[in-house]
Amino acid sequence: MHSGNKPRPSAAAVGAELREDLRGEPVLITPGRAARPYDIREDAEERRRRCPFCEGREALTPPEVAAARAPGLPADSPGWTWRVVPNRFPAFPREPSCEGEAFGVHEVIIETPDHDRGLADLSAGEIAAVLEAWQHRLLAAAEDPRMAYANIFKNHGVEAGASLEHAHSQLMATTFVPGRVLGELQAFWDGSAGRRMQEDRENPELRIAELDGFTAYAPAAARFPDEVWIAPDEPEAAFERTASTTAPAVLLRRVLTAMNRLHQRPSFHLLAVTAPFRAEGRERWRWRLETFPRLTKIGGFEWATGTFVNQRDPAETARRYRAELER
Amino acid sequence: MHSGNKPRPSAAAVGAELREDLRGEPVLITPGRAARPYDIREDAEERRRRCPFCEGREALTPPEVAAARAPGLPADSPGWTWRVVPNRFPAFPREPSCEGEAFGVHEVIIETPDHDRGLADLSAGEIAAVLEAWQHRLLAAAEDPRMAYANIFKNHGVEAGASLEHAHSQLMATTFVPGRVLGELQAFWDGSAGRRMQEDRENPELRIAELDGFTAYAPAAARFPDEVWIAPDEPEAAFERTASTTAPAVLLRRVLTAMNRLHQRPSFHLLAVTAPFRAEGRERWRWRLETFPRLTKIGGFEWATGTFVNQRDPAETARRYRAELER
Repeated sequence: MHSGNKPRPSAAAVGAELREDLRGEPVLITPGRAARPYDIREDAEERRRRCPFCEGREALTPPEVAAARAPGLPADSPGWTWRVVPNRFPAFPREPSCEGEAFGVHEVIIETPDHDRGLADLSAGEIAAVLEAWQHRLLAAAEDPRMAYANIFKNHGVEAGASLEHAHSQLMATTFVPGRVLGELQAFWDGSAGRRMQEDRENPELRIAELDGFTAYAPAAARFPDEVWIAPDEPEAAFERTASTTAPAVLLRRVLTAMNRLHQRPSFHLLAVTAPFRAEGRERWRWRLETFPRLTKIGGFEWATGTFVNQRDPAETARRYRAELER
Repeated sequence: MHSGNKPRPSAAAVGAELREDLRGEPVLITPGRAARPYDIREDAEERRRRCPFCEGREALTPPEVAAARAPGLPADSPGWTWRVVPNRFPAFPREPSCEGEAFGVHEVIIETPDHDRGLADLSAGEIAAVLEAWQHRLLAAAEDPRMAYANIFKNHGVEAGASLEHAHSQLMATTFVPGRVLGELQAFWDGSAGRRMQEDRENPELRIAELDGFTAYAPAAARFPDEVWIAPDEPEAAFERTASTTAPAVLLRRVLTAMNRLHQRPSFHLLAVTAPFRAEGRERWRWRLETFPRLTKIGGFEWATGTFVNQRDPAETARRYRAELER
């Protein structure tokens, strides 16, 4: 990390700079991102007509870095089930173009060729394939020894900040381990975080569904109303190393379907929270999928303190999802 | 802080529980809050007709705890310029009603008797009086030795989570020091945070306006586009102890007016970020007012990492505000 925060016009001009806030925590200043397309408020037909993620429009994205398609078919052509491309408007470039410029990996995982299907509309098998795509890209990002951390996130809908409607998720890999992640790593190291996860997972009041060694549950200290986590019952540090994506996919499909019923297809986030790539103690990390609908606005108290006020009792969240799943 | 996160139905029923996330950081679970009124999406006339903060409707709020009104006038009657009442739907009760229940102070500062004037529409003198009301309530909250920390925040507009339209701000005082605040306190203690603030304040590229020992500037590591801070040039830990509110009020009025012009009266937050009440090293804290329009949605990367991606170069923020102020 650089030593000072004095703005360097050159870095701003090329696009990305890593700065430190008062605590020394990183903030990414990325003026270059502002140019990205933002279709989500346009007319539905217009969105579909111009969507760069639909099958047959492969030329509208940067060349793909991975895809699932029938053998023998050429890259960047139709016939795929998922497809990964570099983000055309990345938060940072893949390589720095000048000293001090922030860089990293920023990819888009297009989850289906079909514009009209959300992740929850896919079959469990198709969702499992998307989770495998996530694993594939996390493993690929980790091969760059300069990358310290990556996560997968999905912003679905206007309230979640999605800029395109077509179902997609993103991978960002960074040269640093962000502060929140470092805090969790420390707590996994001393055992407290693992104990908290286990207590929540095993608490019948918080449990939503179980399948083949995986549990969907409402975390006791959820930041957001109707937040749900899916985690393996046995200790596993890295999402990208988990052997089976089938059971998590089935649980995720059930949870997202229940969320769609509870909140009429809300905007939502989905995160794959995995261990930092190389940090000491990473083997004590516990991966999970985290998802929550974007129902409320974040207030000034939260921005000042980092402490979230959640109006929904997680036990009530679990009851609501269980009731939906039993319908 | 309590020792475990197992949900206690009794605490959920009465309204507020402090839980710990994986890192051990506090999260407030407050199911009792859900009942608060939410007028902001109603018809404008209906909002005005039912507003509990307008002059003459004093009976619609809990009894006032402070107000500025002409001598001799009774409490909870018209004739005030600002008025402070307990939040009728607080994040937590003032006193715990059972063991383990979270409690604290949650007040509303009604900034003007007039429904149609926002904070930026008040005169500099009226804004200075509001800042004095904030000081008054911070000092009152600090008198309770169980309170460790407080801040003042203003959520203006739908995107900032305001539930009522009439101009108001809030004070929340907590029995704990939130994690973000602890991190800043540590960085002020070791000198790094104070150095960062000074460097930014003195950087001509980031400076927006100065007046009588106070500076408005864009912090180099701003989390949000067009975020502006107002801080004293000489070291001061506690906002509630600052001798003069006139110069900060004048600067705040200019900054909010410029923000309203730049973004057509956007939703925005305003925070008074002051030192924790009793923590060791609090004298090295540096208070500031922080304000930022709510222009963008927060994405999954931010929720997972705590690292913010800001698409606006703070030097550009400063240029934009300076240009507006010169118009």
